[in-house]
Order: sequence, then C-alpha cells, then structure tokens
Amino acid sequence: MSTTHAPVPGLPRERDVLPPVIGSAVQRIDAVEKVTGRASYAADTRIPRMLHAAVVRSPHAHARVLAVDTSRAARVPGVHAVITGADTAQVKWGAFRPDLYPLAVERVRYVGDEVAAVAAIDLETARYAAELIRVEYEVLPAVLDLDAALADGAPLVHDDAPGNLAHEFAFDRGGAREWLERSDVVVEGVWQSTRQWHGSIETIGCTAEWSQDRVTMWVNTQTPFLARQRYATALGLPLRAVRVVQTEIGGGFGGKSGDDNTSVICAILARKTGRPVQLVNTREEEFLASRPRIPMRYHVRLGFTSDGLVTAKEIDLVADNGAYTGKAQAVLGAATVRHDALFTYRAVKARSRLVYTNLVPTGAFRGFGNPSADWAVGQAWDLAATRLGIEVPDLFLLNAVESGSVSPHNHRISSCELKQCIRRAAAAIGWYDKRAAPTPHRGLAMGVSVHVSGRRSFGDYDGSSAIVRLTEDGRAAVIIGEGEIGTGARTTLAQIAAAELGLAVADISVSRPDTDLTTHALGALASRVTYVAGNAVKQAAERACEQLLAAAARQTGRPAAELWVEDGHVHAPAMPGEDTPLRQPVGTVVRAELYRPGGEPIVGLGSFDNPSEFPDQLRYGNESGAYNFVAEAAEVEVDPATGAVTVLELAAAVDCGTVLNPPLAEGQVEGAIAQGLGMALTERFDWDGGAPTRPNFVDYKMPTAGVMPKLHVEFADSYEPTGPFGAKGVGEIALDPVPSIVASAVADAVGVRVHELPITAEKIFWGIRTGSTTPPEQAGPGGLSESAEPAPPDRPAPPRDRAPGEER
Amino acid sequence: MSTTHAPVPGLPRERDVLPPVIGSAVQRIDAVEKVTGRASYAADTRIPRMLHAAVVRSPHAHARVLAVDTSRAARVPGVHAVITGADTAQVKWGAFRPDLYPLAVERVRYVGDEVAAVAAIDLETARYAAELIRVEYEVLPAVLDLDAALADGAPLVHDDAPGNLAHEFAFDRGGAREWLERSDVVVEGVWQSTRQWHGSIETIGCTAEWSQDRVTMWVNTQTPFLARQRYATALGLPLRAVRVVQTEIGGGFGGKSGDDNTSVICAILARKTGRPVQLVNTREEEFLASRPRIPMRYHVRLGFTSDGLVTAKEIDLVADNGAYTGKAQAVLGAATVRHDALFTYRAVKARSRLVYTNLVPTGAFRGFGNPSADWAVGQAWDLAATRLGIEVPDLFLLNAVESGSVSPHNHRISSCELKQCIRRAAAAIGWYDKRAAPTPHRGLAMGVSVHVSGRRSFGDYDGSSAIVRLTEDGRAAVIIGEGEIGTGARTTLAQIAAAELGLAVADISVSRPDTDLTTHALGALASRVTYVAGNAVKQAAERACEQLLAAAARQTGRPAAELWVEDGHVHAPAMPGEDTPLRQPVGTVVRAELYRPGGEPIVGLGSFDNPSEFPDQLRYGNESGAYNFVAEAAEVEVDPATGAVTVLELAAAVDCGTVLNPPLAEGQVEGAIAQGLGMALTERFDWDGGAPTRPNFVDYKMPTAGVMPKLHVEFADSYEPTGPFGAKGVGEIALDPVPSIVASAVADAVGVRVHELPITAEKIFWGIRTGSTTPPEQAGPGGLSESAEPAPPDRPAPPRDRAPGEER
Repeated sequence: MSTTHAPVPGLPRERDVLPPVIGSAVQRIDAVEKVTGRASYAADTRIPRMLHAAVVRSPHAHARVLAVDTSRAARVPGVHAVITGADTAQVKWGAFRPDLYPLAVERVRYVGDEVAAVAAIDLETARYAAELIRVEYEVLPAVLDLDAALADGAPLVHDDAPGNLAHEFAFDRGGAREWLERSDVVVEGVWQSTRQWHGSIETIGCTAEWSQDRVTMWVNTQTPFLARQRYATALGLPLRAVRVVQTEIGGGFGGKSGDDNTSVICAILARKTGRPVQLVNTREEEFLASRPRIPMRYHVRLGFTSDGLVTAKEIDLVADNGAYTGKAQAVLGAATVRHDALFTYRAVKARSRLVYTNLVPTGAFRGFGNPSADWAVGQAWDLAATRLGIEVPDLFLLNAVESGSVSPHNHRISSCELKQCIRRAAAAIGWYDKRAAPTPHRGLAMGVSVHVSGRRSFGDYDGSSAIVRLTEDGRAAVIIGEGEIGTGARTTLAQIAAAELGLAVADISVSRPDTDLTTHALGALASRVTYVAGNAVKQAAERACEQLLAAAARQTGRPAAELWVEDGHVHAPAMPGEDTPLRQPVGTVVRAELYRPGGEPIVGLGSFDNPSEFPDQLRYGNESGAYNFVAEAAEVEVDPATGAVTVLELAAAVDCGTVLNPPLAEGQVEGAIAQGLGMALTERFDWDGGAPTRPNFVDYKMPTAGVMPKLHVEFADSYEPTGPFGAKGVGEIALDPVPSIVASAVADAVGVRVHELPITAEKIFWGIRTGSTTPPEQAGPGGLSESAEPAPPDRPAPPRDRAPGEER
Repeated sequence: MSTTHAPVPGLPRERDVLPPVIGSAVQRIDAVEKVTGRASYAADTRIPRMLHAAVVRSPHAHARVLAVDTSRAARVPGVHAVITGADTAQVKWGAFRPDLYPLAVERVRYVGDEVAAVAAIDLETARYAAELIRVEYEVLPAVLDLDAALADGAPLVHDDAPGNLAHEFAFDRGGAREWLERSDVVVEGVWQSTRQWHGSIETIGCTAEWSQDRVTMWVNTQTPFLARQRYATALGLPLRAVRVVQTEIGGGFGGKSGDDNTSVICAILARKTGRPVQLVNTREEEFLASRPRIPMRYHVRLGFTSDGLVTAKEIDLVADNGAYTGKAQAVLGAATVRHDALFTYRAVKARSRLVYTNLVPTGAFRGFGNPSADWAVGQAWDLAATRLGIEVPDLFLLNAVESGSVSPHNHRISSCELKQCIRRAAAAIGWYDKRAAPTPHRGLAMGVSVHVSGRRSFGDYDGSSAIVRLTEDGRAAVIIGEGEIGTGARTTLAQIAAAELGLAVADISVSRPDTDLTTHALGALASRVTYVAGNAVKQAAERACEQLLAAAARQTGRPAAELWVEDGHVHAPAMPGEDTPLRQPVGTVVRAELYRPGGEPIVGLGSFDNPSEFPDQLRYGNESGAYNFVAEAAEVEVDPATGAVTVLELAAAVDCGTVLNPPLAEGQVEGAIAQGLGMALTERFDWDGGAPTRPNFVDYKMPTAGVMPKLHVEFADSYEPTGPFGAKGVGEIALDPVPSIVASAVADAVGVRVHELPITAEKIFWGIRTGSTTPPEQAGPGGLSESAEPAPPDRPAPPRDRAPGEER
C-alpha cells in the first residue's frame, strides 16, 4: 500500500502514481560523513590498547611445512603473540566446501597461504617480528594451470579431492545434442576468462576484541550475518560467541563477502593476547590472498535454424578454483545456468567442473560467473550472427525472452524488457547508421545479460526483515541488518521508507548492521538489497503507516480511510461545514499516541523472502523472484599497426524495473562498465612460480576515468510487480556483457577474435599478422598462457573464427 | 506470562515460582567493559577534527552585562570561535518554566552563570582564550537567601516573577486545621535542608557535531529523549534537528537529568565552527553551575489523638530555586505530597513556594524532594513519639499505610510492606534490647519513607517500549532507549528478558539509547526503569516467546501448549511411544523459522505505561503505579565534649517488591545511605558573595567507605502485582530517611535537636551547652545561616524541642 497517493481507478496504482521520492535524485544519506572524512572504515576502528598484526605467508605454491620457528619473533620487544596453525582450532572452514585452515596445518597450497601471524604494539613491530619467523618447507610439485590440474597423475592439491575436482555437475535439459544435430547452423569455440581482482580502494580488514567468551569483530564484510557463521566455524565456536559489526566499506564487489582468513587470524590473535587486535591487508596481500574472479574456460556449441531461431546450447566449463573453494562452487552454478534465462533455448546441456590448482583461491566478483559466461556464450552468438548473416541486435530480438518466459532451469521471468533494452542500446549507439556507413578499423558489437535480484544460495532463505519506528520528532528509524558497501543501499532503503511514510529522506535513519542487535540479513550480494530488503522495509513502513493513520483517526475522529500522509503530515479533507483540511505533523500524531494513558509506540515489522527456489544439486530451480536485464553496444577502434584498442562509445540500456534513485543507479551502471572494461582489456599480471611477479597497481592496470569511453546509460521503462515500487536489482548486471562486446567489436573491426582475456594489443597485433593471437615464439601447449584455445579432452580441436569448422 | 515454568494451581504463579534468573546475583552485562577501561564516557568521545571548549562564567551573583570584549580571545592562534548570548537563539528554555538563556542575555543571575564560550584546537588554548575575554558588568543588588528573596521590596531575580516566586500552590485536603484543633497532641517545628551536590565521579559533558541541519550530541544525560526536547528548545530548532546519543555515565543521581547549559553551548560552538566540539565541566564548574539539591525550609504541624493515631498535618514549605527553575518545580510537588502516602492522615494542608534567589540553580537529586520532606516531617514524628510516650517504631506501626491504602492525594498503594519493614529494621538494629539497656551518649532513631516507581511528570506519559528480537544464534536483542547511568539497569532488563525467554543473561544484548534509532524512553529518573521499562521488556519478550513456541510447534508437530523454554532450549515431554523429550536449541528454532520459504523473523514489541495519573495543578493524582517503602533505624554516639557524631550502625529494610538482582539492589541501598549520611553530616561549603569560597572536594566532604557505619540491608518479602516479576523501583528510597534518623538519634543521645542541615559537631556542641545550636556570637536574624529555626512570617515563633509549646 502506498499511503501517499490516492488510487487511480483502472490503472496499476503504484506504477502510474509513484510517490515523488521514488525516482528522485536524493542525496546519499551518508554523503556528508563520507566527504568530510567522518566515515569509519575498517582501519579507522580505534580501541584502547589495540594491537596490530602481520601475517607470514607461503612463498611456495605447494609445500610441506616441516617446522615454524617463532622464537626470535616472540622475543622482539612489543610483540604480544605469535601464532601458527597449532594455535587454531584446526578446523577446516568454507562457505560450501570446508577445505581451509585459518593458518596452515602441515601444508601450504598457494603463494600467499597463511602460515603464522604476529600481534604487536604497532604495525612496524609486528611486521619486523613476522620477518624473523623461520619456516622450513619441503617444496612439493604444484599444479599451476587447469590442464596440469586435470592431467592424469597430477599432484593433488587436497588429498580428499581426487582428480583435483572440488565440485562438478552436469545436466541435459531437453536433449541438446539431438537439437544440435538437427540445427542448420552450429557454431563452436573455446573461450577463456581470467583472474580479476576487485581492486577495492579499501583492503580487507578486521578489528577483534574478546569479552569473556565472546568475540566482537568490526569487519568491512559485505555480509555480516553470513560472516558470523563462517567465523564461528573457523574459530571452532558456537554461533552465539561471535558478534560481527560492519564498518564503513570502501568497495566490496564480492571481494568482501568471501572466505578470507584475515578476520579469523585477527580474532585468534585477540584471544591469545587478551587485547583488541587489528589486521588490515596490505595491497600486496590483497592481490596474493584475497579471492579474485574465477578464471573459466568454456567450450560452447550453439545451434540455430537457418532463419536464426536458437535451438540448443552445450557447454563444457572448467573453472580454476585455486587452492581453496570459498564461494567458487556457487559461482560455478550461476556461470552454468543463469545466461540460459536470456534466450528461448529449446535445450541446454552442461558439464561444469571446479578444479583445484596451487594458485590463489578465487571467489565472488560482481557478476558472479555471468561475465565469464556472457563473454564465452556471447562470442558464440556473435559468431552465429555472422554465419547467419543477421545483425546481432536482430538475432537477439528474434530469440530474446519476455515477461512470463521460463528458462530451462525453471527461472521464471516475471518482468522483462530485454527487447526494449536491445532496441534502445542499438539506437543509442547508432547501430544501423554506423552499419550503413562503416569506418575502417572500427567495429560494432552488442551483448546482453541477465542477473538476479537476490539469489537463494546460503540455505533455503533469501529474505530480509526490518523494523520501522516512527518517532516523536516526525522521523523514522529503520532497523535492519543489511548494511552499506558503497552502493547507496541505505539511501535507497531510506527512500522506500520515506515514500511509504510520506516523510523526507533526510528524516529517515537507517541502522548499521550489528549481528547482536539488528535484524538478520544476508547482506550485500547477488544484487539483492533493493529488491529483497526494499520489500521488507516497505512492508515494515506500511505497517507503521497503518498504525499512524489509525492513531490519527482516533485523535481526530476521522475515519482512517480518509487520511493519508505526505510531506511529513497527516492529511484529511476538510470536515463537512469546515474550511480547513486536516494537516497534522507526523511527529505530533506519534507523540500524542505515546503521550496519553496507555500510550503506545508506532513500530512496524516487515519481512520478505525472495519468492524463489533453492536450486537442487543439478542447479534446477528458480534462482530469484526478479530478473534484471541489460543490452550493451560498443564501438571500438583498433590501430592496425599496434593492435591497440580504443573503446569509443558504449551504450547500456538496463531493465532494473523502477529506477529508485537515478544517480545511484547510473553510478552502478557506469562503475560496472569500468570494471568490465578492465576485465576485457587491461587487468592482468605477469606470473612466475604460481604468483604475480609484482602484485601491485602499477602492473595491474585498472581503468581510470581518462580511458572511459563516451557512455550512454538508459533505463528501460519497466516495472517489476513483486519489487518495492516496481524495482529490481542493478548493482552487477552492467559489467557482464562488456568483455564480450569489446571482443566482438574488435573482431568486427579487424577480423581478429581473441579467445582468452584480456584483449591485449599484442594478441590483436599477432592476430592481424598470423591469424593466431599467440606470438609465434610462445605457440605450443598452453593451458592458462595466453594461447589460442586448447582442445577440450573429449572433443575435436575447436575451429578458429571464420574457419570452415565453425559451421556444419 | 512466564514461559519458563509450569503454573502452580491455587497459587499466584509468578510470585511463587519465579524463574531462577530472577533474584539471582547475575554479573552486570557491562562489568567487563567498565573494569577494563573500555567503557566510553563523555570525555572519551573522540571525533576527528574535534575542538575543545571553555566557558566564561559570571563572578557576580547579580549584574547587568554592559559589554563583552571577545577580540583578544578571538585572535589567539588555535581559537575557532568565541560566542556570547548574541550568537544564540536567545530563546529561554527550561523543563517547566522557561527562564534560562544558553548564554547570558543582558543580565547574569548567579556566580557561575554562562556569559561566553570558546572553541579551540585544545583545552589549554580554549581556557587561555576564555581568560582573555573581558566582560564589563554593572553589579546589581542580589538576593542571597530565602528571607531576603521573600522580603518586601526585594530585588527581583527575574522581572516577570514578582515576589521572586517561581512557582507556588496550596491545598487543604480534609480540613487539616480543624483536625489539628481537635487533636490531643500537636507538635510543630521548622526544619531546613541544604544544598547537596551529586558529586558524580564524572562531570557533565557533551560532544556535538553538525551534519547539514542536524546536530548529534553524545551526552552523559540520564534522559536522552527528554534532553533532546530541551536542547531543541534551547537551540531554537525543531525536535527532529537534534539527535542525542547516550555515552557511558559515571554517576547520575539526578544531576545529569537537568537543565544544564553545557550541552547547549557545546552544540552552538559546533555549529559556529563547523567542527565537532567537546565541552566537559571542570569539577569547579560542576559545583558552581550544575543543579544541586534544593534547600527547603519546612514549617510542620502534626496532630495526634492521645493514643497515638495521627490526625492531620500542615506544612508551609519554601524552597530555594536558585536563579533558574529547571526541574525544581516538579521536585517541589513531590516534596509536598509524596510523604503523605506513608501514614493514614485524615487531613493534610500545604502551602509550597519556590523562590528565586541569586544562587546556583537547583534541581533533581536522588530522592527528588523526599529527603527534605522526610527530614522535616520525620523530625515532627520523632518529637511526637517523645510527647506521646510511644516508641517510634510502635507509633509508626500504629499509623502506617498498607496495601490498598489511598493517600489524601489519591496515591493508590497496590503493594506495601511498610509495617514489615518497620519491624525488620527495628529487629535488625536491636531496638528493644538497646532500649532496655541504654548506653550513655548513644541514641536510637527510626525513619520511614515512600518512593515512586516512575512518576508522571513530563507530559501525560510515563511509559516505555521495547523491541525484543530472538536471534538465529540463540540469543536475544533488546532494543530500548532507556539506558544505563551506573545502576545496572541494562543488566536488570537483560534478566527480565532472559527470564521470559529461558535464555542466559549473557545471551541478551541491550541497545544503548540513540534518539534516532531506539524506542522512546523517559530514561533514568524517578526510580522508574526496573518497573516501567522492565514491564515493557517483559511484554516484548513474552510476545517473542509466543512466536518462538508457535514456530517450534509448527516445526515439531507438537501443540504449542506443551512447549516451554528453559536453558536456551525449547522443551516438550516425550511423545507417546517415544523415550526422548524434545530439547531443541532456541537458535535452531529461530533459524529454521527464518530459513524456509517465506521465512519470518521472531520479533516482539512490548510497551507499558505506568498506570498513574498526571497530577493536576494542585498535585492531586496518583503519581505512580507502584510505591516502594523503606524503614531505617540508626544508632549514633555523640562525643559530649566536642559534639562529634559517629553513626555506629544503620539498618535498612526495603520493600521494593521482588528483588531482581540482590547485589545490584544492595548497591543501590548502600550507596543511597552513604549519600544520605553526607547530606546529614558533612556536605557543605563556606559561602561568600553568593558562592562557595572553595568549590572543590577538599572542602566539600562526601562520605567515604571508612566513615560508613555497620550496615544491615534487608529486603521485605514483597510482590508488586503490576511489576515485572513483582518488582518495584529501588534506586532512590534508601537515601530519604537518613538525615532524619541521624538528627533524631542525636536528639535521643544528647537531647539536642538540630533544625538545619548538616548536623555538625559545632551545632551539637553549642546545643549541649546553650540549648541553641547557633554559636552565641552568630545568634540573631539568620535566614540560611546555621541558626535555630526562624519563625515563618504568619505563625508564632515555633517551640523548641521538649519545650512546653510542642504540645497543646
């Protein structure tokens, strides 16, 4: 119920008469504290007597730990504790597959694996002492790429994972091979994505303090309640012994939702020292031991009828888990099935394997598998369009899903403006005009993607709950555990409450997550907060508003049905025979409801569970109650002399339902595009011995404002009936198609299709000259090296672009 | 509903089978953070860029401010702002009578009145700059005692208060004069109490910071929500523009619930500088300008039948308001009527006047007028016992109220064990044995008092509300705005929640007050938190528990009526044909209720409004839903050579209903007795020109552990049917009778009755020698000097102790 507007007969009420604060460019409620430096990030936590910590990490990709000599470190003045695996619960933990010790027990499995840690009076002392710890290793054979890991007789990263398989599943829905056999056109290829680091401006950090048998952890986690569960497991404690309080967060992108050991080590040091301890990753540690995007290698086969109707798709996916699993298992699921909600496939078949290697563990990253899937499958679609002689937008329009569609995995699409997005992105980039007058060395491409608004992944619940209290000063408090990772989620929730309560956003307070006090929340993941938490806040505010109007009715003697709230006041038409309509400040009504014999507060409780299904072992099940969509088109220019790519223009048309706050939504889209461009073009390291040779921002080039193309960001006219005021998620989706459209546009410009990210000038240079993107001197069996795609074990060697084998 | 125990047929359920945590010596939930120095008091607040402040105060008791030259101060490097009255809203404020400016406008009215203030980069700079501010005063005639203020033609403290009367009222309930005329015995006297400072270990302090148009104030206030109202008024802001967050509090005793300007000045400086500002009173400022106990002069007449039944009482009360009113008006009301709920008076008559003087403004102090009333009226009762030849305990027992009694002011006593208290205090002190074998120079005395459990004073509401959330880790969160001033209130609320929820107290989190987030609460005043907030928490916990049991019933298929919670588990008897009773952890049930399609949180909302009446202008109305009682007996020894008093033994028997936490309750009783002894014996200053000559703890002697008598603290077997688990308030009452029993015991020991506090050796010395407690050279018209009681203007000179005029 929107209580701020009268219903409009014959029309969907909310969609047509949304409260003015919905869709308004409201200033972020945390703007002032952030720009004035008041916001307290993980490293800003200050507790009296707090110690600082440093971690000793493995320099080997795989080794047996024979001995750890901490004696010299322990003698350094100012050192309060030195810990090794022996000081931990020695319980393996992990969100899905428990395979990680807080500190190494017997073996290290990647360069960066935590071996020991020190707490000392200051950071310098802690780091100095850490350097004095002597670890004796017996170096073991390591598997440093997917092929090595999958080879017969490969060394095992974990003894209990034969074949280095951390997880695998396969399905065939609809008989894909039969459909492919019967298809007129089949395209096929192998595409490989790469590690990508979140590169958040703030690294992962924690401050921990014990009080008797409980530990409080101030952490920059995206997911305080899920983190509490993980930390309790890792610390060998009951859940109740851990309290997690979210600090301000300087960027999350999935990297602060994972199974990092930083907070766990911090808590163990705090227990051992009896003092608060702070541990914040250095930038180098963040590169070596946080949880970057999972490299995935897709073999894709895609079939069409001759008039361009898609028939079936088959993928064989291997993903590089790194040394420990974390959330990679869940990412693998999304990377296998979600993109099937884009097109009307008659059948889909997949085999997905998550493979241990002795490399940095991987995990969640904005897009959650989608960017890798969209890159690989999008390339196949682009190839198909060429083969079919149909412009990509037209091929997409022929096959795109619509509201009411159901994917082969039972993803039920309640609202979908994908076709509108395709048309708008094409129009924004000037697709047909540019096609009509092509410019040499310029190329055009389009990609699409679908994302969830929340995802049922961590137990059979993807809900949220909120408490809304109307206050005697005419404000409202929203008590909720969802939190803020920089996207403006708290502002959006405040807008939803304000809209429902007829208050200004400035009059809404939103609590910060504290597992001891606020309501349970899964936190900032899977683009869920606006949709899931927004619905909970909306219901809580509705219920508070109902109480407010009932109180005002009692106080004024008017029927509650005649009353509404707007502009911070309760309104009613003038009584018969009177001139003045009722206009009573909300705070006055709330106070009068309280300040009377038997006074009562006005408090509404709201809850919402995503109307979705917990997927079964084979990933069948409706992931989310609402799906958001995007179409993006790009124009690039390639310098044929050097292979250098310039992305000239990029248009994104996004269906996220009602746009609650345009600048915040635009910020999400623009930021996601920037991260997509980094993934597509520049973000990579030189590797040696299982680790980047120089893990820093000088080598690892993230896009800056100066390299951004001209952007067109549009939002589809869309309304999600199950969303708060029609809204869906928007945080991730705009990243997903970017690598694919850059690659397709390069292919369109100079005829070179790159099969392994990133799309470097060097690959294009060689592609133009040799037809292979691999430099001649590096050609040969490659694995994860920047090579042309290797053949999957059970398939014939894949065809090259525009080679005859693409079609049959 | 207590859900932890099965009902006992035929007996009041809760009283007889209380949950084990009720009445248990549970450790304070804030114990560890307090003893480890983690608790953050007002001066511990640290905000980046925070400035420090200093205040310039009037050295004159009454003066016109001709000019304030801030130019030199403003030029001091590091000074960010210098403010005077011209920088304020120039709006008068005050809880009852708005008469106070944040900074002086035109006139100063007492030594300590705030004139100007400075904010600078550090405290030293601020204080140095404050010393450079030159104020030009025209000194005005001042009224420095009650008699001077009431004299014809006295200078006016406020031009709008003719006769210097800030407030007055009078009533005659039952025809007191007629009853007195018909009485067999009438005693009469004048008794004068004195200023007493709270002497909290922490002084009043605030840190204020603005963000756009709102100010957040971290204050050690006892009453965050009431303070918000006061600050908004003083700052000329709407209520919504002020957020108050309670810091840890190092002692309140009423002194941190008042109309001090400290926080207001702090907020004005923060606005002017655009930076956070902290202002914390020095100890000298706390003496000069906080709000000590109101000195009161009572003329008391008390009538009895010859067999000792009380007939009527008449009082004429004048109270020294000081220069501004604050809460003194409310204190005057309590000091006039509350003690009438002790005895079965047939009629009571009173005239009460609150008188402005050019002295430090006064306000609330533990007891809230009761100690002054009990001192004066208690002396009359003691005189009467002597005249009637009845032992005091016996006289009290003849006349004491009981459960079901109603006072002349309609105070309805629901539970009362006053007679039990009288008997137990007499037994504990060994009254009749000591009477049978008297020791020279030793004296015995007894006093009684009554106190409220909450008081309807600040609008027609004395309620509280709470939100209780059961958490997935088997804990519970209590969200409430009541706070903690050192009494252990949050621990008691945690016990109530734990009892209702079957959880351990260590598994309960209780929020800290924040007017933006927590539920509305009047805070720590009028001994209300246990009773009022306790009932709200109990109801919220009951409702959460009902939801828990309903969830467990759904999950297990058992009827909810068979289920109960205890020891953190939901229990049920074994099903027919099964061996094992159900024993499911609470957290498991809560989590299962959440982690299911459509999952819901378990959240209970509770509220309670004190079943009392807002007193009318003449103080008629039931102040509180529950009254607590005390009887105290003391034995003192007087050195006849010097007049020095030693309190040998003191027995207190307290009726506070069910004792929720014995060590906390005992701590309240013992601390209150210590403060009563300070008021009775030692707490005073030498005065000159309207202010203490040396406002510090060296001159102002508060009792230390070394001077405490042997204490006997007992709690009556009592149960308040409207209280949470039968509990009533206990925070104040034990202070109230102490001055009276010390004075009566001195009179019993050496025949000298002191009529003006404190009871110094000097007064007794002269009393023994001259029959007057005034030194011979100081005799004469006295006002507030330590004289024998002056005659009230409209009455004949009062009789001395044991003089014939006492009786007629």
